Amino acid sequence: MSETKKRILTGDRTTGKLHLGHYVGSLQNRVRLQHDYDTFILLADVQALTTHFENPGLIHNSIYDVAIDNLSVGLDPEHVTLFLQSQISAIAELTVFYSMLVSVNVLRHNPTIKTEAKQYGYDDLTYGFLGYPVSQSADITFCNADLVPVGEDQLPHMELTRKIVRRFNDMYGETLKEPQAMLSDCPRLAGLDGNSKMGKSLGNAIYLSDAPQVVTEKVRSAITDTNRISVKTPGNPDVCMVSQYHKVFNSEDYDNICSMCRSASIGCVACKKQLSEKLNTMLDPFREKRAYYEAHRDEVRDIIVSGSEKANKVGDETVKKVKDAMSISL
Amino acid sequence: MSETKKRILTGDRTTGKLHLGHYVGSLQNRVRLQHDYDTFILLADVQALTTHFENPGLIHNSIYDVAIDNLSVGLDPEHVTLFLQSQISAIAELTVFYSMLVSVNVLRHNPTIKTEAKQYGYDDLTYGFLGYPVSQSADITFCNADLVPVGEDQLPHMELTRKIVRRFNDMYGETLKEPQAMLSDCPRLAGLDGNSKMGKSLGNAIYLSDAPQVVTEKVRSAITDTNRISVKTPGNPDVCMVSQYHKVFNSEDYDNICSMCRSASIGCVACKKQLSEKLNTMLDPFREKRAYYEAHRDEVRDIIVSGSEKANKVGDETVKKVKDAMSISL
Ligand code: SF4
Ligand code: SF4
Repeated sequence: MSETKKRILTGDRTTGKLHLGHYVGSLQNRVRLQHDYDTFILLADVQALTTHFENPGLIHNSIYDVAIDNLSVGLDPEHVTLFLQSQISAIAELTVFYSMLVSVNVLRHNPTIKTEAKQYGYDDLTYGFLGYPVSQSADITFCNADLVPVGEDQLPHMELTRKIVRRFNDMYGETLKEPQAMLSDCPRLAGLDGNSKMGKSLGNAIYLSDAPQVVTEKVRSAITDTNRISVKTPGNPDVCMVSQYHKVFNSEDYDNICSMCRSASIGCVACKKQLSEKLNTMLDPFREKRAYYEAHRDEVRDIIVSGSEKANKVGDETVKKVKDAMSISL
Repeated sequence: MSETKKRILTGDRTTGKLHLGHYVGSLQNRVRLQHDYDTFILLADVQALTTHFENPGLIHNSIYDVAIDNLSVGLDPEHVTLFLQSQISAIAELTVFYSMLVSVNVLRHNPTIKTEAKQYGYDDLTYGFLGYPVSQSADITFCNADLVPVGEDQLPHMELTRKIVRRFNDMYGETLKEPQAMLSDCPRLAGLDGNSKMGKSLGNAIYLSDAPQVVTEKVRSAITDTNRISVKTPGNPDVCMVSQYHKVFNSEDYDNICSMCRSASIGCVACKKQLSEKLNTMLDPFREKRAYYEAHRDEVRDIIVSGSEKANKVGDETVKKVKDAMSISL
């Protein structure tokens, strides 16, 4: 059965725990798709090194954090393949081969590379960072992925992967599978402070692993309509992060809340309370699963080990095919 | 015993048969050192791809050609480890890790990269070509090489390798062995036409696999003192390629030949005949070994396979140490 399903490649960098932005942006979708697709989930520890190479401790801890985040939201280890990038030598081997097929200029002008280089404030790109779209192509193709769920901003990377595949197949004969982007219409969630980036250092994210009272506290400190000076002043939900979160996590009440806000028939304290209750209700079953996996870390380890074994099997076959196509074998 | 010997890493790109330039520049030295050092000889097929990726057939054939060239000059497969780069996943894995430790600017300003980019006429470097010094660092360090025989022009690469090793060890703790350059005083042999580069397309090289009559023919067409219009005109050996070859391959007669040339007591035909006889005398025992290996290609294959297995064992240990140091393991 599973042989006939299309394969999805998705994953997360192991640079910290996952937050609600990851959940609405990809995990939720991943859970929804897990029975209809053969899902490969990459724990991208090597890619994490491209930006966090001075902080290996964080990367190591994040492997378990991110794995447990995935499992806690309902990804079923019996159905999905959760694997660790650094364990898959095929990815490194394909990265080296693909690096012959891409020019430095193409990489320099990749919009994501440009943006990320700016964001991380590099004076001087590392060679590995510049090649991040190349290794991403290896991540996708080593397992013959059919589909890659991506946001709009990731489309240039996907285009490069497809170009590399076509270039390889043109030059050495039909060998690699050309993947398709699976463009998601998932909402992009902004931080509680309205910043479009969320992160630990910004202190504006609710983590999947946050305790109920932490969630309540974070929501309490969220940015609302700053012109609403008292409960009696009508508010403008369009400039309030709390209403944005209601829209995503409490959509059935969203219209109602907006009109109550505009008519000053709900106060911000009550509005926030409603949101944090909603969030905690959603998070409670995840917390239950998390508690189980936190208490059974060996089981998490086994899930990653056996997922990596499965991924290695596919990857070794791909590398063999690639080497045969290039005639670099004995 | 062999555990206490220092390890040498050396090798050849598999982009064609080896010629006398390779012999005097490195193979001869390799043979001389094989009993005093634990010698690893890399058949660099992946590196060959950086410049010859459109020509995989050539690379494939060259694997055997180059292996047999090495064996025919007297490298003893019982003593040296002959291995194929594409079979060693540790090299690809280390390349990916080291690429986080080197900036693009450092690579762009590497003199060899500059020169080679110019020589091969790239408008636009490929990412893999730009990273050639990074993967060379992986070639050297995967097997804990102590020494790398290099020419003067390869020193910047060695310096980069040493820098990567120090950077890694500083950041993650003492893990990698810092290799030393073993600067050779081997003569650089020019082509028979006086061109400092030798190659098949230039038609100016004598190959180790050339038959005796081919050697004789090639020497006959070598560039001599063009002002020497007849046997009776005194010649100038300083502007004659034949005398340069006598200097290298017939050093005991070199002074004598020069003075006979200057006094017109030897003609170019006789002088060339002497050289080709000398060369063929040197090449004859190589031809004998070559005939054996050409008739036993399965044995050559086994030598490379078991050498690659040995190299993989060392490489896998290095990768494990590197991953442990970086804490990217489960
Ligand atoms: S009532 Fe709710 S939507 Fe309106 S400003 Fe306050 S927190 Fe925002
Ligand atoms: S005699 Fe020999 S050294 Fe002199 S010019 Fe002729 S080939 Fe050259």
